[in-house]
Amino acid sequence: MKKSLLAAGLAVALVSGSALAQMKPETMVKQRQAAMTLQGKYFGPMVGMAQGKVPYDAKIVQRNAGFLDNLSRMPWDGFADSTKDVKSAALPTIWSESAKFAEAADRLQTEASKLYAVSRSGDEDAVKAQIGAVGKACGGCHESFRQKQ
Amino acid sequence: MKKSLLAAGLAVALVSGSALAQMKPETMVKQRQAAMTLQGKYFGPMVGMAQGKVPYDAKIVQRNAGFLDNLSRMPWDGFADSTKDVKSAALPTIWSESAKFAEAADRLQTEASKLYAVSRSGDEDAVKAQIGAVGKACGGCHESFRQKQ
Repeated sequence: MKKSLLAAGLAVALVSGSALAQMKPETMVKQRQAAMTLQGKYFGPMVGMAQGKVPYDAKIVQRNAGFLDNLSRMPWDGFADSTKDVKSAALPTIWSESAKFAEAADRLQTEASKLYAVSRSGDEDAVKAQIGAVGKACGGCHESFRQKQ
Repeated sequence: MKKSLLAAGLAVALVSGSALAQMKPETMVKQRQAAMTLQGKYFGPMVGMAQGKVPYDAKIVQRNAGFLDNLSRMPWDGFADSTKDVKSAALPTIWSESAKFAEAADRLQTEASKLYAVSRSGDEDAVKAQIGAVGKACGGCHESFRQKQ
C-alpha cells in the first residue's frame, strides 16, 4: 500500500476528528448527534407519507429505510462514559439506567431493520404501520433519555 | 395508520429539522455536514489499518465499509443552490463547476461501493488498496471544493 495514496484520506480522517487512538469525548458527541441528524433527515419524509401529508413514494421509502437501517446502528458507541460531562441533550439516565438504554437502542435497530425488510415487500399498509413502530421506538427512547426540546 | 402511533416519530422528525415541506438551507448544511462527520468516523480507522497504524480487523472493515457505502450517498442533496450563502467550508466552485463537483461526488460513491464489495472478499491487500482509492476520492474533492482547514 503506497503511503501517498492514503495521505489525502488520512488528512480527511484526522480533520474529521476520527483520531486513530483515543477519541475525544466532544468528537464522540458530535458523531452521535450526526447520526441522529441523519436519522431525522431520512425518517421525517416517511412519517409524512405514513400520515398522508406527503405522497407515498415506494422508491424513496425503500432508499430511506435502507439508510435508516444503517444509521440506527451508528449512535450508540458515542454514548461512552467519557462523554457524560459534555454538554448535550443526553440525560444522566443513559448511564444510570444503561440496561434500559441499551434495550431502547436495540429496539430502534430492530424496528428500523424490519422497516427496511417491509419496504422491499411493496405492501404500503405494512410499511406505514412499521413507520409507526419506528416512530414509537424513537419517541420511547427520547422520552426517558433525552432532555425535552 | 393510527395517528397516535406516529406522534412521537413526527415530533422527532420535526425537532431533528426534517421539515416535511420546504427544507431550511441551514438544516441542509447541518445534514450534509453530519454525513461528512460520519464518513470520517468510519473511514478513519480503515485508513489507520491500511497504513499499519491500527491492527487489521476484517470484521470492522466490512462493517465500516458498509456504513461508508451508505454514507457516501447522503451528502449531495444538501448542496442545493439555496445553501450557497450559509456559512460553511464549501467553496463557490461547488456551484460554478457543478458538473465537476457531481463527478467528484460520483467518484466517492463508486470507490466506496467497491470498497464494500472488496471488504466482503476477504483479500486484505485488495481492501487496503481500495481504502487508498477512497482516500483519493475524498481528498480530490476536498482539494477543489472545500476551504483549506
